[in-house]
Amino acid sequence: MSVLIVGSTALDSIKTPKAENPRLLGGSASHAAVAASFFSPVKLVGVVGEDFPKRYIQIYKRHRIDLEGLQILPGKTFHWSGEYELNMNNRRTLLTELGVFETFTPTLPKAHQNSQFVLLANIAPSLQSHVLNQMQRPRFIAADTMDLWLNIALPDLLKLTKRLDAFVLNDSEAHQLTKEDNMFAALRKIHKLGPKYVIIKKGSHGSILSSPQGFFICPAYPLHKVVDPTGAGDSFVGGMMGYLATAKGSIDRNIRRAMIYGSVVASFCCEGFGLNRTTGIKRSHINARVKELEKLTRF
Amino acid sequence: MSVLIVGSTALDSIKTPKAENPRLLGGSASHAAVAASFFSPVKLVGVVGEDFPKRYIQIYKRHRIDLEGLQILPGKTFHWSGEYELNMNNRRTLLTELGVFETFTPTLPKAHQNSQFVLLANIAPSLQSHVLNQMQRPRFIAADTMDLWLNIALPDLLKLTKRLDAFVLNDSEAHQLTKEDNMFAALRKIHKLGPKYVIIKKGSHGSILSSPQGFFICPAYPLHKVVDPTGAGDSFVGGMMGYLATAKGSIDRNIRRAMIYGSVVASFCCEGFGLNRTTGIKRSHINARVKELEKLTRF
Repeated sequence: MSVLIVGSTALDSIKTPKAENPRLLGGSASHAAVAASFFSPVKLVGVVGEDFPKRYIQIYKRHRIDLEGLQILPGKTFHWSGEYELNMNNRRTLLTELGVFETFTPTLPKAHQNSQFVLLANIAPSLQSHVLNQMQRPRFIAADTMDLWLNIALPDLLKLTKRLDAFVLNDSEAHQLTKEDNMFAALRKIHKLGPKYVIIKKGSHGSILSSPQGFFICPAYPLHKVVDPTGAGDSFVGGMMGYLATAKGSIDRNIRRAMIYGSVVASFCCEGFGLNRTTGIKRSHINARVKELEKLTRF
Repeated sequence: MSVLIVGSTALDSIKTPKAENPRLLGGSASHAAVAASFFSPVKLVGVVGEDFPKRYIQIYKRHRIDLEGLQILPGKTFHWSGEYELNMNNRRTLLTELGVFETFTPTLPKAHQNSQFVLLANIAPSLQSHVLNQMQRPRFIAADTMDLWLNIALPDLLKLTKRLDAFVLNDSEAHQLTKEDNMFAALRKIHKLGPKYVIIKKGSHGSILSSPQGFFICPAYPLHKVVDPTGAGDSFVGGMMGYLATAKGSIDRNIRRAMIYGSVVASFCCEGFGLNRTTGIKRSHINARVKELEKLTRF
């Protein structure tokens, strides 16, 4: 089955202590869509400006991503610029030019409206809800978010979470949302907001799933070198949803393995600037790292 | 087989946002010895003053810890006092009274000198070396340390690491020691200091083993409530060494499972002040959490 992915489609200018790369293909939907494409067909919903490089369209196409839902509008593509500190964990935003994103309203083509697997990648929660309003009855809806929306659009986010099967957020966001230091206490509060599945991302420390079947401690694949972590979280959730959409059996049966696959795609994402590394791998590379993770965690 | 454990034996006055507990049984050797006692006989080497409460001696005895190497000297027991912040991760030392510890020289009773499993729990590295100088040929030597020794006794520590089979330190200490942000790069440098096994502790994020057989990602047991994390690292390494000393087969075969057992004992340690919770559990409680960890990590 295919995955419908809505989110930002952007140009990212990224500075790390070692290098600087302007106007890379980025955005939550780009990372998630490429990650999901290793496992299932993907329908991308987003917006770019007329300045969006043709070669980036070609990257989507090489990953067989359905672009019927990608609007190309007069104006400039959303441009984000950020700088990482030496340890590659902390980053600061240098510049945000919304461009065509400012007035973006995602409109679903007819063919997208009955999608069964929906990933609402990081974007304003009102837009995430707007996408759901256009849909029939998806089998599984997951959403990611970011601290910005907790700060400026919390009521919108709380309306959205009621409609979600899975809510994915990072540990500092979980703390910000619940004011709880303890993970269990935070998870209890987040479940009460609606989602049956809550996934807390912890960067290089992996992630935690809380579900009706209990908890799962999902490891991160350890990396010799982190070149650029931008998009790792989006890759994680994209890979997870791509795997879920094609795996046979129930969500409960597959979600742990789906997270492992997502975790591995995220590891590749970190090894290159933007999508440079992820777009160079094959499913066999992913499978090899999943096998390695099995060995790294066996006891 | 028994484990010889040398380290600090102290009184800990601990303040958390929720409670304050003065003069608890503490010290690296106390935590490690009680943790190891669930798996194997323990010989404790340390020093206390005449003020050391008799009931704490009774706690050691209830855990069948051999106290022939515990000196009781005129003067005061080492007293440490610390305060935890709200998130229970950061703590600051309020007071350190060395007492009899100031002039402590660990002297091994004859019967201790041919111990096969030696844990040099956190204590000045010169004292850790002094213990090894009195020993015949231990089969497996592990040492823990703390940031203080990296700051004030680095040359001593670097002499010690050459003699170790296993070196255990936390992630910030590994960074301080190697100046490397990447874990693999840090591990490479630490192996060059001597130890075949390097274990990096990451608190609630678990730990990592680097060994000739490769890496192992060891999870932490997730806790509903952290009451007092003091001694968790000591409990981890104590439990690990206790398990190793009795497990049949090679170190390589057993060390991953040993870390899991250590991780579980550490989880109990965090659930009470000082050793309050750890001294109230049985091996069956530990086994149950190990089984749970198996389920929590399976995919």
